[in-house]
Amino acid sequence: MFVSEVKIRVRYGETDRMGYVYYGNYAEYFEVARVEALRELGMNYKDMEDSGIMLPVYTFNVKYMKPAFYDDMLTVKTSIKKIPMTRIAFSHEIYNEKGELLNTGEVTLVFIDIKTNKPISAPENFLEKMKKYF
Amino acid sequence: MFVSEVKIRVRYGETDRMGYVYYGNYAEYFEVARVEALRELGMNYKDMEDSGIMLPVYTFNVKYMKPAFYDDMLTVKTSIKKIPMTRIAFSHEIYNEKGELLNTGEVTLVFIDIKTNKPISAPENFLEKMKKYF
Amino acid sequence: MFVSEVKIRVRYGETDRMGYVYYGNYAEYFEVARVEALRELGMNYKDMEDSGIMLPVYTFNVKYMKPAFYDDMLTVKTSIKKIPMTRIAFSHEIYNEKGELLNTGEVTLVFIDIKTNKPISAPENFLEKMKKYF
Amino acid sequence: MFVSEVKIRVRYGETDRMGYVYYGNYAEYFEVARVEALRELGMNYKDMEDSGIMLPVYTFNVKYMKPAFYDDMLTVKTSIKKIPMTRIAFSHEIYNEKGELLNTGEVTLVFIDIKTNKPISAPENFLEKMKKYF
Repeated sequence: MFVSEVKIRVRYGETDRMGYVYYGNYAEYFEVARVEALRELGMNYKDMEDSGIMLPVYTFNVKYMKPAFYDDMLTVKTSIKKIPMTRIAFSHEIYNEKGELLNTGEVTLVFIDIKTNKPISAPENFLEKMKKYF
Repeated sequence: MFVSEVKIRVRYGETDRMGYVYYGNYAEYFEVARVEALRELGMNYKDMEDSGIMLPVYTFNVKYMKPAFYDDMLTVKTSIKKIPMTRIAFSHEIYNEKGELLNTGEVTLVFIDIKTNKPISAPENFLEKMKKYF
Repeated sequence: MFVSEVKIRVRYGETDRMGYVYYGNYAEYFEVARVEALRELGMNYKDMEDSGIMLPVYTFNVKYMKPAFYDDMLTVKTSIKKIPMTRIAFSHEIYNEKGELLNTGEVTLVFIDIKTNKPISAPENFLEKMKKYF
Repeated sequence: MFVSEVKIRVRYGETDRMGYVYYGNYAEYFEVARVEALRELGMNYKDMEDSGIMLPVYTFNVKYMKPAFYDDMLTVKTSIKKIPMTRIAFSHEIYNEKGELLNTGEVTLVFIDIKTNKPISAPENFLEKMKKYF
């Protein structure tokens, strides 16, 4: 299993009139966490996309327990629990500064060849870098 | 069962560099669809919130089959399949102009008393308006 | 001069914890208004972009007089006051349902050839369609 | 004059189908830069708002010279050039990693008493902290 953490501070525009972070904005927090997790693994998502492989989201599931508020410094914990095949699954947990678990998210993405627009297996160099964690 | 439909045109800023609607932006489309479904039922979400009851999202699940693109005129179908208790569940399906199903979403929200911050039952006038559909 | 109007309803996620529409979100309202103004003129911005001409924003100026709130049905008035050359300027005014002027915006965009990434003159068919208003 | 700098990495969802950061999203970058500038001065915007003073945006002007792209690590330079009275003006410059100036922004905000909803002078403790820079 590979686990990583990233800090994200809540921006004003991400809150709504309830004073909470709008429920749809966590998608971006999870995405930042995924990209930083990959960077920690030695992979750059942008380079992968530029090389012809994209990773569109296939499923996205969130369970919201507590709200995040403006200016909160959140910690997003990201785990990759299984070696990816044609799909890769990220599990996220978001905590506030008091250590309270605010929500959990699961995001599955599919490796797609940009030219053919068809699913492909995770690239070799990607799998190579993940091996030591599994 | 109550079913309603709303049209939403994809805005430029909602697309990403893949050319797709960014996966997190569907949260807003679903929310627009929910609010319009309630309006069709004779209820105004804003009034409900101003009267002291809010509906934060508890669970949010999406499955993405096909992308939506810039300027697409989408149809969001929204169903309420069960009389709400302390929670209300909305099922959404998004179609493009060719009638292709792009994704499906399930959103569960909780009735919360703003003063006590505790879950409560769906308000009487709300249930009254829904009765004839069930 | 060409003038057009479009209605936009404020979405929940577009408000912030002040209860106002977040100041940056008007950029999207103005963009919707521009695209609909062009559609009214018989031009489709997406087709133009697909044909190799894009219109990135060069300057963007807003003056906020009054806030817009959740669920407000706004009217965005858009004027093109001058025949475009290599640039096109849109003037916007946003009104709420009471007819109050909430803010004014000026957006200048540049015609760019996507292949060369250089500014070009407004396309002939575009100018043709605008002629009768000037 | 007070000057501060903050780094912001471009998120995937902030790009548009042109591959550029969507022009409206810079509003959020500027806001992050303002809040961090204030924090550096020893002021917490959230605390100020919680204490009854808010700072809605009055004018917002941007000039876009070059685009920012996905995953770019941007530097936002923020200057306060004048001691604030009832208004405070922030001047922003955004640079990419190559040191290219991408755009400049000017944002003016008004000190508002939340209870009376009327403009007020900048709070004393705020002015106190700014004094040494002017």
